[in-house]
Amino acid sequence: MQNDLLRLDALNAMTAADFAAALGPVFENAPWVARNAAAARPFATLTALHKAMLTGIEALAAPALAEFLNGHPRLSPETLRRGTTAESTAEQTALGLDALDAEISARLDRLNAAYEARFGYPFILAVRKASLETLFATFERRLAASPEAERAEALAEVAAISWMRLLDRVRAAPTGSVSTHVLDTVRAAPAGGLGVELWRRESDGGMTRITSFVTNADGACDHHLLGGGDLAAGTYEWRYDTPTYFARHGYSTTARAYLGKVRVAFTVWNPEEHFHVPLLLSPGAYTTYRGS
Amino acid sequence: MQNDLLRLDALNAMTAADFAAALGPVFENAPWVARNAAAARPFATLTALHKAMLTGIEALAAPALAEFLNGHPRLSPETLRRGTTAESTAEQTALGLDALDAEISARLDRLNAAYEARFGYPFILAVRKASLETLFATFERRLAASPEAERAEALAEVAAISWMRLLDRVRAAPTGSVSTHVLDTVRAAPAGGLGVELWRRESDGGMTRITSFVTNADGACDHHLLGGGDLAAGTYEWRYDTPTYFARHGYSTTARAYLGKVRVAFTVWNPEEHFHVPLLLSPGAYTTYRGS
Amino acid sequence: MQNDLLRLDALNAMTAADFAAALGPVFENAPWVARNAAAARPFATLTALHKAMLTGIEALAAPALAEFLNGHPRLSPETLRRGTTAESTAEQTALGLDALDAEISARLDRLNAAYEARFGYPFILAVRKASLETLFATFERRLAASPEAERAEALAEVAAISWMRLLDRVRAAPTGSVSTHVLDTVRAAPAGGLGVELWRRESDGGMTRITSFVTNADGACDHHLLGGGDLAAGTYEWRYDTPTYFARHGYSTTARAYLGKVRVAFTVWNPEEHFHVPLLLSPGAYTTYRGS
Amino acid sequence: MQNDLLRLDALNAMTAADFAAALGPVFENAPWVARNAAAARPFATLTALHKAMLTGIEALAAPALAEFLNGHPRLSPETLRRGTTAESTAEQTALGLDALDAEISARLDRLNAAYEARFGYPFILAVRKASLETLFATFERRLAASPEAERAEALAEVAAISWMRLLDRVRAAPTGSVSTHVLDTVRAAPAGGLGVELWRRESDGGMTRITSFVTNADGACDHHLLGGGDLAAGTYEWRYDTPTYFARHGYSTTARAYLGKVRVAFTVWNPEEHFHVPLLLSPGAYTTYRGS
Repeated sequence: MQNDLLRLDALNAMTAADFAAALGPVFENAPWVARNAAAARPFATLTALHKAMLTGIEALAAPALAEFLNGHPRLSPETLRRGTTAESTAEQTALGLDALDAEISARLDRLNAAYEARFGYPFILAVRKASLETLFATFERRLAASPEAERAEALAEVAAISWMRLLDRVRAAPTGSVSTHVLDTVRAAPAGGLGVELWRRESDGGMTRITSFVTNADGACDHHLLGGGDLAAGTYEWRYDTPTYFARHGYSTTARAYLGKVRVAFTVWNPEEHFHVPLLLSPGAYTTYRGS
Repeated sequence: MQNDLLRLDALNAMTAADFAAALGPVFENAPWVARNAAAARPFATLTALHKAMLTGIEALAAPALAEFLNGHPRLSPETLRRGTTAESTAEQTALGLDALDAEISARLDRLNAAYEARFGYPFILAVRKASLETLFATFERRLAASPEAERAEALAEVAAISWMRLLDRVRAAPTGSVSTHVLDTVRAAPAGGLGVELWRRESDGGMTRITSFVTNADGACDHHLLGGGDLAAGTYEWRYDTPTYFARHGYSTTARAYLGKVRVAFTVWNPEEHFHVPLLLSPGAYTTYRGS
Repeated sequence: MQNDLLRLDALNAMTAADFAAALGPVFENAPWVARNAAAARPFATLTALHKAMLTGIEALAAPALAEFLNGHPRLSPETLRRGTTAESTAEQTALGLDALDAEISARLDRLNAAYEARFGYPFILAVRKASLETLFATFERRLAASPEAERAEALAEVAAISWMRLLDRVRAAPTGSVSTHVLDTVRAAPAGGLGVELWRRESDGGMTRITSFVTNADGACDHHLLGGGDLAAGTYEWRYDTPTYFARHGYSTTARAYLGKVRVAFTVWNPEEHFHVPLLLSPGAYTTYRGS
Repeated sequence: MQNDLLRLDALNAMTAADFAAALGPVFENAPWVARNAAAARPFATLTALHKAMLTGIEALAAPALAEFLNGHPRLSPETLRRGTTAESTAEQTALGLDALDAEISARLDRLNAAYEARFGYPFILAVRKASLETLFATFERRLAASPEAERAEALAEVAAISWMRLLDRVRAAPTGSVSTHVLDTVRAAPAGGLGVELWRRESDGGMTRITSFVTNADGACDHHLLGGGDLAAGTYEWRYDTPTYFARHGYSTTARAYLGKVRVAFTVWNPEEHFHVPLLLSPGAYTTYRGS
């Protein structure tokens, strides 16, 4: 965990002016959002703080909302050349918009122009979690949306951007964790004794193993993992040693096994939430889903 | 593909003595198996050749079968020190039995002794596809089996070992291939336009990308992959670009997506078969299985 | 199959005036739709005929579209008392709108008034497949939609209504059929030898068994079922004799089985299509989906 | 619930002779099982009582075990004509063995003779949960088993028969219940607001609705169902009003829905256990499994 993050109790205790200064850049060119949210303190969680900030935006009448949306910079190399907020610069650069080849850049320009002509404000996207592929896939879909649907989606992206900027500044409440649960659908019973590893994707794309354990008689870990504030937003992967499990139960010989080790990648967006990932397992099939 | 492999038509055309010499080591200390199979030529596939060889073993009366099983070397560091067939040496060494630490080695010795006392022949396992984890998991399970069940499993391992040795010597018929098929369970329709990659695990554990394609309107590749003799036994992995697909369809924003890229590892045991791997996909769950 | 249905070749051969007369009531108060579609004949399938008719509506400019939508009667007891088209009368009566109690009727009136005030045309729903529960669930959701999204959904309902009216008048092309396919995920292989029944829901709510068969070695029926024009729109149900299958394979004893007989209900909307319903089966879980 | 059942506390309090008399017929022609189990009282649950009784059988040496197994009557019309225990008569009659046609009866005789010749004791099956189909499917499979495997399976059937006879005599502890949990895999979130019904299969084959509820925000019922001793062994069915749920969320229009109402049949074998049945739901697929 980053040690230089603000703590929620510090945010709750500081002056309104300091609070507004600390969180001002969370919404692009809209320091008033943080300023207004100061009055709603104290916040027990980052989720509650974020919700309070969004409430201010949802309350905007149409002209003020248009102005707010227009405060967002265009996503484009040109924006980076001209200069924009530090936050947007970092986000757009992380996606590689500072180094697009000419063809891609021109395609992006055409989409930006078409979008602005249709909707009257710039295309807004939480680019830090995007790739160029998802950027363009999203852009083309949203260009065809109705104005009402698109406004809702633009606001959802505003929420996503501001949430990630909050996570950059403030330590989340230690309420989140992850867990898994494996059901053996051959025996219609929990899969005990199965080796499981939990890995995290690092910012350089590499994977780091966080922990490993063997499932208990209930097919689960004895306690929630990454609790107590250790869960960070990001991408994780469960790796299940299914070949050994199948060998132990005689479901399939090692030589003839069909399934290799099962891996399930999942993304933690809100580290104050619990992420439960069950696995339904048999030699010929498996199912995974977001549990609750 | 290895170019120094024998071809089936060459095997079919050679003298019985040459055939027996070429395939003699396929069954451990039982060159008669290859000798007897020569008369059943020609074989259109390696699968048919293997089946003919196994027929000879299945026809053995109990004493001859016991003798055949006893022709297999014990899996142990001691065996490697004393020397055994070239094939078994290579297989046991690949699993690391030449470099076990003392504790593991002693554990293996105890299991071997208990097994031989109970069943009257050595523990047989197709070790090349095994890990130490699956070796011990399998060993402990089989030690508790009934004599009849265990004899069946020992013969299944004999089949697995001989199959892999055949694959080392003879080029498989070009009848195998792989395919995938993605169903979008949100729309209850094929998932067209989804990026898919096929990767292969190399002998050093690294992954090599074999091909990539975008699913057609039926949610599949336009043609079977790795056909025409290009499919080799081994471990493969499908990688599906589900985040981009979800972004295009607006199922989930990139920032809030729950599932990361979906990967499905599967093992090709018989490269003369077709391996079909469907994926049922939604933002909150996926299911994969061995199709047909 | 109803023998008094028009045949597509007869429709293709008749005069434009007869064609228009035969299909005039298919779109509510819009006989011009059938009249215009006559020129696009011949049609090989009902699906093609329907698509041609819809093309005429999709081409309407906004004022003409508003007029077209306003040609639809309000769904309400009052409409039935005052009298409307024979088709709408039959459809609304089938849903029970002629016999609503006062409270439900008042609730429907309130929704109708709110909807018309918001969108400027009556709420349109393909009521024949609806229940009062789905009517109200749909109504409340659509009342909150954006005008653009709601117009798209109203047109989808127009398509659904007209499709069912076409099915009342014209025999579908004999291109549709149903099939199932069962995978045994314990053995990672097709589930052969499994007893399967196909049932159809009758208009009185009762179920009629259409056919039964035992799955072949590929886990399927030897041929598509209800082909050759025997498939009608409606609700069907697969019933799988999983307890006997499990007993035969020793997966679970009859006494301790967890799953009862598996039933999968599915709706055929377009009898010119093929409906494939796979089942992934194990003693502790099953998955079914719309295949392709 | 049957009110004339013995209570566990009464069984715990009665004399050993009365206990033995009350439970003597639970194991076929082996009143000593109940007699011996008396000393292990008190029992908190029927499960514990049953386990104690089975312990006595598992401790038998081979000759005594053979004698015990041979105390079971042959399953056949001839047995019923000659007369056997009241319990076995009732069980065999419920399966219809008193009214087999000649061909089926002869087939059963052949299997019985072959089985007894092979294993040295009669074929034992918990027939009350069987059908003629599962009887024959099981019989043919077990006839081919190894003596060790078959002895284990015969003892499993002894356990099943005695368990059902215990349930006939003694009221189970009120520890069991059922529950369901529905995940919406489109939104990757619990499916709240979904109508669910729980039905029970009656002895005459008809279905009775036990209860209905609407799922809460967690996709579940607010409390476990059939708790407090209301759960009886038997077959149950969940019925989910998926069409209304899909209509409310706009996942599919009623007219075009693919899936009909989802029904999941499951069997409660031990009414002292909790039976959790999750459902993973999307418009194009669903998965159900035995949860824990």
